[in-house]
Amino acid sequence: MPLPARRLEHSGLEQPTFYPLTMEFELAHATEILSRTPVTLNSLLRDLPEPWLMQNEGPETWSPYDILGHLIHGEETDWIPRAKIILEHGEARPFERFDRIAMFEKSRGKAIAELLDTFARRRAESLRDLQMMSLTNELLQKRGTHPGLGVVTMKQLLAAWVVHDLGHIRQVVRVMAKQYRDQVGPWTAYLAILGSED
Amino acid sequence: MPLPARRLEHSGLEQPTFYPLTMEFELAHATEILSRTPVTLNSLLRDLPEPWLMQNEGPETWSPYDILGHLIHGEETDWIPRAKIILEHGEARPFERFDRIAMFEKSRGKAIAELLDTFARRRAESLRDLQMMSLTNELLQKRGTHPGLGVVTMKQLLAAWVVHDLGHIRQVVRVMAKQYRDQVGPWTAYLAILGSED
Repeated sequence: MPLPARRLEHSGLEQPTFYPLTMEFELAHATEILSRTPVTLNSLLRDLPEPWLMQNEGPETWSPYDILGHLIHGEETDWIPRAKIILEHGEARPFERFDRIAMFEKSRGKAIAELLDTFARRRAESLRDLQMMSLTNELLQKRGTHPGLGVVTMKQLLAAWVVHDLGHIRQVVRVMAKQYRDQVGPWTAYLAILGSED
Repeated sequence: MPLPARRLEHSGLEQPTFYPLTMEFELAHATEILSRTPVTLNSLLRDLPEPWLMQNEGPETWSPYDILGHLIHGEETDWIPRAKIILEHGEARPFERFDRIAMFEKSRGKAIAELLDTFARRRAESLRDLQMMSLTNELLQKRGTHPGLGVVTMKQLLAAWVVHDLGHIRQVVRVMAKQYRDQVGPWTAYLAILGSED
């Protein structure tokens, strides 16, 4: 990959003369991220010593183990099922509400390796379903009804899926980092992740 | 892995009766995380479409490409070199100051694949050096002098290295997520990562 022309503008050494503030949604870009999340979580979590997996940030917060279960439940009841509702019913039929804490029951008794395998399998199925929808630009604009947010488009649903993945990877590493909150001494001042709550 | 006893206490469905607030530092725990970071970054970044790699969060901020260069420079001049200074000189010789933006020059012209390979190689070398130090509990308490933070211990240096890794993985996924800030429509309300600055 040659160095792109705008590299210098991004360098932080000089003020940029121009750069795009954000990216436009492209289905191929989105699936690149969605397909990598199981691999990333595998790298972060598989065979880790148990405390890294099970510690959370305190009462009513999630451990990496909990987060993985939440992502599995999303594959089963949220993203692709909602895309199918948009395709079949448009705005007429609101999505089912998503149970954000269903994983506390569903994951019970399962090893982290089993959850990682399940997530990888479910995600692969989701991406096959997505591909079979052959979404055109027109279909990406098709509208559905979110039970809490109101009218949304297929494109917004898929973009939210990508951001949701990245948000939970972020949560996993934050929860892990905080386990060393009391170990870094004066470095706390330089490590913003230790004080973060989102 | 059997479900640990404290799993239920962490479930969020009931108030925990007891759990440890954070983990104690253990060298084996720390190296588990340090050894995974190159694999995680590889999963997140290798062969990604260029916009995901080069976009940042605006002026004076870093792209995933920049962050990777920063991590390489840390292997070369920060973590292990500082550990060696502690072993050899204790508090008598302060660490060199770390140049947080050296990568803007050093990475120039390099492809992301080359940076990923370099980071993986440098990290493997760092972990070999770390192992050869045969750090005992006593050596983990040995003190050094940070040019900005004052007296620190070997253990704090190594814990900070782990948290620094996790913090930059967090930064990578945040920078990527923000590229879809204008694509998710009403979902912005549910996706905290889009509004985060740390």
